[in-house]
Amino acid sequence: MRLGSRGALALFGIGAAGGLVGDACHVATGTTTYLDATLPFIWKSQLWFPVAVGLATVTTGELRLRLGPPRSGRDPAEAVTAIGSVVALYALSAVVTDEDPLAATVLIWTLAIVIAARFGGGMPALACAASAAVLGPLAEILVVEADLARYAQSADGLIGVAEWLPALYFAFGIVAARLAEILMPR
Amino acid sequence: MRLGSRGALALFGIGAAGGLVGDACHVATGTTTYLDATLPFIWKSQLWFPVAVGLATVTTGELRLRLGPPRSGRDPAEAVTAIGSVVALYALSAVVTDEDPLAATVLIWTLAIVIAARFGGGMPALACAASAAVLGPLAEILVVEADLARYAQSADGLIGVAEWLPALYFAFGIVAARLAEILMPR
Amino acid sequence: MRLGSRGALALFGIGAAGGLVGDACHVATGTTTYLDATLPFIWKSQLWFPVAVGLATVTTGELRLRLGPPRSGRDPAEAVTAIGSVVALYALSAVVTDEDPLAATVLIWTLAIVIAARFGGGMPALACAASAAVLGPLAEILVVEADLARYAQSADGLIGVAEWLPALYFAFGIVAARLAEILMPR
Repeated sequence: MRLGSRGALALFGIGAAGGLVGDACHVATGTTTYLDATLPFIWKSQLWFPVAVGLATVTTGELRLRLGPPRSGRDPAEAVTAIGSVVALYALSAVVTDEDPLAATVLIWTLAIVIAARFGGGMPALACAASAAVLGPLAEILVVEADLARYAQSADGLIGVAEWLPALYFAFGIVAARLAEILMPR
Repeated sequence: MRLGSRGALALFGIGAAGGLVGDACHVATGTTTYLDATLPFIWKSQLWFPVAVGLATVTTGELRLRLGPPRSGRDPAEAVTAIGSVVALYALSAVVTDEDPLAATVLIWTLAIVIAARFGGGMPALACAASAAVLGPLAEILVVEADLARYAQSADGLIGVAEWLPALYFAFGIVAARLAEILMPR
Repeated sequence: MRLGSRGALALFGIGAAGGLVGDACHVATGTTTYLDATLPFIWKSQLWFPVAVGLATVTTGELRLRLGPPRSGRDPAEAVTAIGSVVALYALSAVVTDEDPLAATVLIWTLAIVIAARFGGGMPALACAASAAVLGPLAEILVVEADLARYAQSADGLIGVAEWLPALYFAFGIVAARLAEILMPR
C-alpha cells in the first residue's frame, strides 16, 4: 500500500472522525434518520457508518497515489483547512436541508467546486472526486433501499438520497486525495 | 475591444450561465418571481435575464481593461474559484431570503468584501465593483417598476429590490474584472 | 505597550466597529436581546458592548505581541480578509440561531478552525484564541447572570449563552492576534 500503514491509519481516523461529526449534524437536523439499531451507536451514528467512511477515505487516498506522482507541499495547515472545508460543507448541508432542493444543491456544488479548485490537483484528484461522487451516493442508495436509514422528505429527490449528496462526496474525494499526498511516507 | 472577440464571448457565456444558475436559485426559493412571460423561459429565467447578465459581464470586463494595465497571473484555478465564489454568494442570498434583512445584508456584504480582498486588484477593480453595485440594482429597480418581476416581501426593502443586492453586484464586479484580466488576449 | 498608541487605537476601532455590526445581526435575528437600557444605545447595542469588544481586541493583540516575535507580512488585503472572515462568522451565527444547536455549533467551530489554519501562526496565536474562547463566553455568562442581556432559547445551552460562542471567540482571538502583527509599529 503506497499510503503506508501510518498514512492509512491516519486517513482512516480522519475519515471516521469527520464522518461522525458530519453525520451527527445530519441526524440532529433530521436530514437523515437511522431506521435500524442492530449495532451499537457511536455518538449519533450506527457503528458501521464511521467504519465505512474511514475505509472510503483510505481507499480514495490509495487510489490517488496509484494514479500518479503526488504533488509537492506537506503543510499541516493545508491539511487542517482541507479537512475543515469538507466538514463545514457537511454541516452546511445539514443546515440547508429544509431549503429548496435546487438552491441547496447549487450552493453545495458551487462550494465543492471552490474546494476542488483550491485543493485539487489535475486529473488524479479529479478522478478520485468523480469516483467518490458516483460510488458514495450509490452506496447510500443501497443503505436506503435496505431500510437501514432514510433521508428527510425535503432531501430525498435523488433515488431516496439528497440531491446535493454527489457534490459532498465530490469534495470528499478531492480532500481525501490531497490528504493522501500530504500523509504518504517519503 | 480590448477583451478581443474570444475573451468577450467567454465572458458573455460565463455571465449568462452564472446568471441562469443564480436566478434559478432565486426563483426556486421565492426570492424573485417573474410577473411577465412574453419571452420564452430558459430554465427558470425569462430569456432577457441571461442576455442582460452576459452583456453586463462583458461591459464590466471591458471597463476593467480600459482603466489600467491588467495584473499578472492567468491561473485557471483562480478563474474557477472566482466564478465559484460569486455563484456561491448568489445561491447563499437565495437561501437567506427569509432571514432578517439586516443579518442577511451584513453576511452578503462581508463575504463580498472577502471576495474583493481575495480577487480585487486596486482602483480599477474597485471602480468596476462600485459601478456594478450602483448600476445593477438600479437596473433591477427599473425591472421591478416595469412589473416584469418582483422580490419577496422579506427582501424588497431597497426600493423594491433586496437590501443585499448591491453587495452581490459588488462581488460580481470584482470577479468580472478579474476574469477579464485572465481572459484578455496577450 | 508593544502595539503603540496608533496600533492600539486602530485595534480598538476595528473591534468596536466589528462588534457593533455583529451585535446588530444578533439583535436583529433575536439571537440576543438587551434587557437593560441604562446606557444609551449605539445602533442596536448598549454603549458598553462596543467598548468591551474594542478593549478585548486591544488586550488580545497586545497579548499576542508579548508572547513572541510577530510573523512577517503586512498585507492590507490580509487584514481585510481576516476582519471579514470573523464578521462573516458573526453574521452566520445570527442566521443559524434557530437551527439545531449541534449542527450550528459544528458549522461555526469548523469555520473557526479554517480561519485559524489560514490566519493563525503557531503557539502565540493559539494561546490568544484559547484565552478568548474561555474568557469571552465567561464574560457573557456574567452579562446574562446580571440580567443585562439574554440569548434566544434556541441558543442558550452553554450556561445561558450560545453553544457556538467559544468558537466565535476562538476565531476572534486568531484574527485579533494577526491584526496586532500587521498593525504593530516597526
